[in-house]
Amino acid sequence: MTAARRILLTVGYDGTRYSGWQRQLNGPGIQSEIERALSRAEKREARVTGASRTDAGVHARGQRVHFDTESRIPAEKYPFVFNTLLPPDIRVTAAREVDFDLHARFSAKGKIYTYRIDNAPHPDAVGARFRAHQGVRLDETLMRLSALHLVGTHDFAAFEASGGTSKTTVRTIRRMDVERLGDFITLTTEGTAFLYNMVRIIAGTLMYVGMGRLSPDCTKRALQTGDRLLLGPTAPAKGLELTKVYYEGEPHGEENGFV
Amino acid sequence: MTAARRILLTVGYDGTRYSGWQRQLNGPGIQSEIERALSRAEKREARVTGASRTDAGVHARGQRVHFDTESRIPAEKYPFVFNTLLPPDIRVTAAREVDFDLHARFSAKGKIYTYRIDNAPHPDAVGARFRAHQGVRLDETLMRLSALHLVGTHDFAAFEASGGTSKTTVRTIRRMDVERLGDFITLTTEGTAFLYNMVRIIAGTLMYVGMGRLSPDCTKRALQTGDRLLLGPTAPAKGLELTKVYYEGEPHGEENGFV
Repeated sequence: MTAARRILLTVGYDGTRYSGWQRQLNGPGIQSEIERALSRAEKREARVTGASRTDAGVHARGQRVHFDTESRIPAEKYPFVFNTLLPPDIRVTAAREVDFDLHARFSAKGKIYTYRIDNAPHPDAVGARFRAHQGVRLDETLMRLSALHLVGTHDFAAFEASGGTSKTTVRTIRRMDVERLGDFITLTTEGTAFLYNMVRIIAGTLMYVGMGRLSPDCTKRALQTGDRLLLGPTAPAKGLELTKVYYEGEPHGEENGFV
Repeated sequence: MTAARRILLTVGYDGTRYSGWQRQLNGPGIQSEIERALSRAEKREARVTGASRTDAGVHARGQRVHFDTESRIPAEKYPFVFNTLLPPDIRVTAAREVDFDLHARFSAKGKIYTYRIDNAPHPDAVGARFRAHQGVRLDETLMRLSALHLVGTHDFAAFEASGGTSKTTVRTIRRMDVERLGDFITLTTEGTAFLYNMVRIIAGTLMYVGMGRLSPDCTKRALQTGDRLLLGPTAPAKGLELTKVYYEGEPHGEENGFV
């Protein structure tokens, strides 16, 4: 038995066949898969804490997870240990020892979400599980105009799905990019914290703006009034990826990846 | 009954759960899925011909397929017809009427294959089904040197897996690019036609060259001697995508896509 340490992981997953970070009746959760792998590796009942409770079907490249352990496994060996025990659609890509006052969820300084749209007339089968398809041509200039209203600190009450449990609906969006590369559109949203389904409501709204079904000003008016009905639908889970969670002292540039 | 026409399709698929273009004992084939959809749409026993018989687990964005029909369905409606009947991991992205002397396979002027490598220390779970992982850092400059020997018209006998049935093993490679973007490496191979497993043997060889396990000159010596043993292993099917097949009068620039 050695002294306890706290380990912080970076975790990626293809969320297609999971009920989300947490276990639900409709399928296994990412968290329970990670806990099962750690329990096997360390021969104990292990529990882990994630930075973000991603929904069913949402993917991640930068989920962060902490746990405490008394094992002798060197921190940098944990990715190898986990990846021999986890299913191939969940991968641990980094691990380091951190202070006990770092909490995966409460210490996060910011998060980056990526939402991917396939805007070709007919869907691209390669990568279809990571993009929402919209065959109607989207005007990314209108989408960008509408997105700009969201940057800053605002009351995002209109952007919260029912079922949210937040005490306050004031949030800060630091960056909101809309990029087109050929038929693929990528929305990048960076902020301190997000309300329930907030990024998917933003994505669904920007898609409606891009189609001309909503005015670019709808985001501004929704922030002013708190009225969910001024916005578009909640975009499909499969287009969403938790790309990065960062803590004090960590860089927060974008990851590379597919567009 | 209207006069018969020949229709040429562009087809994409996530090949993960298929036995390849052709049906095998181990699973369904892409071709039979397309034939089943067409048979249902046109209420007849339909047969289709593909440009390339991709292997089990190989993906496509630019497979081309022709069939003859006496139906009244306008050519441009076929993607919608197919995509309501096909499983979501096979999508028809374009269709047009062509002359009867165009044959999907025998009229092809060239093909572009993409091979994707994840060169991060630990695998990226998002898109893992479309990339081969190699945790050892690859030197892309060495890979590029080795790839250059392959460009041109050569006897590629050393690059054919057993089971190939070609009368001649002389082939022309028009272009062979090695590109790195962060941890992702993309190999692009354009040629007139390819031997059985040729692109995967090239990919496996270039990976060995990038690791320093083979000299960049191994490709040159293998072309000279026809000796398969001078080359690396056949790289995994999942990294390979048939990106484009083109015919007389068609452009053959690269598609966009994920890197």
